[in-house]
Amino acid sequence: MLENYSKEALAAIKKAKAQVGDRIKIVKKGQAYEGLLMPRAEIGDASAIVIKMDNGYNVGIKYEKGTRVEKVAGKTPIPVKEEAAFEVGKEPIKMIRFDSAKPKVALISTGGTITSKVNYKTGGVSTIEKPEELLMNVPELANIVNVSAIVTPFAKMSEDMDSKDWAVIAEAVSKELVKNDAVIVTHGTDTLHYTAAALSFMLKDLGKPVILVGAQRSPDRGSSDAFMNLICAARAALLDLSGVYICMHGTTNDDYCILTKGTRTRKLHTSRRDAFQHLSEDPVAKVWPDGKVEYLAEHTPRNNSMKTSADTKFESKIALLKVYPGSDPAVMDLLIGKGYKGFVIEGTGLGHVPTKAKLSWIPTIKKAFKKNIPVVVVSQTLNGRVNPNVYSNQRILFYEAGATSGEDMLPETAYVKLGWVLAHAKKLDEVKKWMSTNLVGEITERSEVKV
Amino acid sequence: MLENYSKEALAAIKKAKAQVGDRIKIVKKGQAYEGLLMPRAEIGDASAIVIKMDNGYNVGIKYEKGTRVEKVAGKTPIPVKEEAAFEVGKEPIKMIRFDSAKPKVALISTGGTITSKVNYKTGGVSTIEKPEELLMNVPELANIVNVSAIVTPFAKMSEDMDSKDWAVIAEAVSKELVKNDAVIVTHGTDTLHYTAAALSFMLKDLGKPVILVGAQRSPDRGSSDAFMNLICAARAALLDLSGVYICMHGTTNDDYCILTKGTRTRKLHTSRRDAFQHLSEDPVAKVWPDGKVEYLAEHTPRNNSMKTSADTKFESKIALLKVYPGSDPAVMDLLIGKGYKGFVIEGTGLGHVPTKAKLSWIPTIKKAFKKNIPVVVVSQTLNGRVNPNVYSNQRILFYEAGATSGEDMLPETAYVKLGWVLAHAKKLDEVKKWMSTNLVGEITERSEVKV
Repeated sequence: MLENYSKEALAAIKKAKAQVGDRIKIVKKGQAYEGLLMPRAEIGDASAIVIKMDNGYNVGIKYEKGTRVEKVAGKTPIPVKEEAAFEVGKEPIKMIRFDSAKPKVALISTGGTITSKVNYKTGGVSTIEKPEELLMNVPELANIVNVSAIVTPFAKMSEDMDSKDWAVIAEAVSKELVKNDAVIVTHGTDTLHYTAAALSFMLKDLGKPVILVGAQRSPDRGSSDAFMNLICAARAALLDLSGVYICMHGTTNDDYCILTKGTRTRKLHTSRRDAFQHLSEDPVAKVWPDGKVEYLAEHTPRNNSMKTSADTKFESKIALLKVYPGSDPAVMDLLIGKGYKGFVIEGTGLGHVPTKAKLSWIPTIKKAFKKNIPVVVVSQTLNGRVNPNVYSNQRILFYEAGATSGEDMLPETAYVKLGWVLAHAKKLDEVKKWMSTNLVGEITERSEVKV
Repeated sequence: MLENYSKEALAAIKKAKAQVGDRIKIVKKGQAYEGLLMPRAEIGDASAIVIKMDNGYNVGIKYEKGTRVEKVAGKTPIPVKEEAAFEVGKEPIKMIRFDSAKPKVALISTGGTITSKVNYKTGGVSTIEKPEELLMNVPELANIVNVSAIVTPFAKMSEDMDSKDWAVIAEAVSKELVKNDAVIVTHGTDTLHYTAAALSFMLKDLGKPVILVGAQRSPDRGSSDAFMNLICAARAALLDLSGVYICMHGTTNDDYCILTKGTRTRKLHTSRRDAFQHLSEDPVAKVWPDGKVEYLAEHTPRNNSMKTSADTKFESKIALLKVYPGSDPAVMDLLIGKGYKGFVIEGTGLGHVPTKAKLSWIPTIKKAFKKNIPVVVVSQTLNGRVNPNVYSNQRILFYEAGATSGEDMLPETAYVKLGWVLAHAKKLDEVKKWMSTNLVGEITERSEVKV
């Protein structure tokens, strides 16, 4: 990995007898930079020696005449017990050091920004297919967990995923949980929360933590959140809890990550690193990169003896439709005609659709109900609970037209849940009941509403 | 209005020589209650004397033998200069007192919870058609503004409104602004933010404030936010600013309201009184019921000499479509076939649609582009800016398929704007340019993105 550096840079590194992962000091023009020696970035200046500094950022220091490289003895932060290759990839990865004394965690890499890099020709970012490269940049992981396997079922940007991909990931997680203490799934952020919700329903008898993690900026950018998110995910993988969680930045600073329930998280910013927020409730925990944890909500403890299986049956002929002033119910009519089996409607406010408007949704919803097609209503307000008993229009929607309240479920979670429920409960009454009942934390038990 | 009280309650009120609006003290079982005497509630116990307490809440104190009613002299908070009837309604409303020394404000009532009441038979809430009833419960308004007219173009729950209603409201606002210093629009909360965005585009040369206000709980409930929101709206109507704003609770306490831009506000809770939030930026101001104001952002000052007109041309054949894993582009194909003239797509993350997924949206978007139909992409993350230049999939969407970035516009605002722009700019290039350009505060000028 060092050999890709320029001749002069490589000579200076060799002279210092430094290996990738060693702590080195680079002195240039009177200024000293200290950090872990990294492999050369695939792109960019070959004479820039890349080190990972203690603040988590990688910097490239261009080797010029007079630049001095020194190995810093006695401060290597990675305890090396043995070195091992990964199961995936032809080249053994020397960089990550296998520590059999640490809990075993499998990493399932599915693509996305966290395993992407900038293409400096086009200016765009695209996914890579070698997730090992990511780990090479986070040697600290070896201090926390024993990454026993890297599994790459596919590499996609998450906007290109669908329910088939969720099933593949669920199968991979289930398989890895047999031999590991936890699983970390790296994933694109665009639909990370949809996948987290899907895994929450698909993984049966889950007694260990499954941590989904992504990055808002690719790892080859100075400001990438990939490393800290991954380190926090490794910390979370060791906790005494079970279930599916998302681990991402809790603030725009690099202070801590938040661990949010797979069924209650939503991406709420295009670019900020703290885009993933836990709605209607507190996140489950704050997790710091150094391992400090602060629990903020109740959680189910770990039960390593449970045998997890993947129950991935899913009805994909479902749709999530948002209503708004002037919205056309013809789109729902079309999908009913195409054989769609269920609908989640993002209503307004407490759970409304245009009712007495010129384009009323009521006739179409009644039609669906007559065909035994469930119509679940959630709110586009994202926070708060649908309450079918407040307004006259709601009596028409819920009691005459047969819609079902999705309670305080997020629209995205309700959509995923409906696909799973339709594949498991065949009768309409059963589907309706399940959709209004909490299964895996997606619905908060009713309590006094704060007003 | 007093005559509806029970014989015994009425006798006690008359004995105290108290009129509606007078400050009275009711002493019952050694406990004293002080507040402004209210008309009897239309529903409920006729022997309960209703007073508005200083905390803003109405309470009904059941008159029983031994209950004492006293008029509190010298503390009447309503300065009475003259009494006048309103323009609307057959019965002159004596309750609200006309003070010609105060700035003139017209109130346009359009329905919604703020003018609704509970039907205790069905348990549901429905809209009333006499907005004067609302004002009777807020005598404090007369201390702040001179409500010169109440206009009721229609009374609808806001989920039943469409672009035709926006045009009617815009015409009414424009007309009232000729003779008033400001206009307050009371409105249902479900689609309040859609209407606020519509008025922002439809009102031309707007030099005065137009304040939209609603309530999350109907005025006949003890916990209603209607009164404080209305009082704060009256305070906001007097400010030195122009433009379309929403005025609703800033917190779940009854401390202050926030004044948010009509183009940047979204309802983010089904039931909480602080459901309306200003996204991506700070609200324009905090407004306290006592008139205290704290500005949080820049705003355009008032210019009373501008002649406002309503430019309500609107292309209603447009749709707002949300993409998600498994979303079916057939709905967009259908609408293209039905002659739809433009689309706003709620993409994921930085502005993505399923691209290489089995159900790719790219062919349909290309088809729209070939037919000169604009496709504007915003983000379902609600916060942050679409950036078409980061990922490979985006190059396909924005550069090959011809989609337009909606920058950091809210999806709802982008939808409303597209309908207005399509009615005013006929060429596709012009539509695309306008949709990416700030017109009335809907797009934040590009700045360094916080990450």
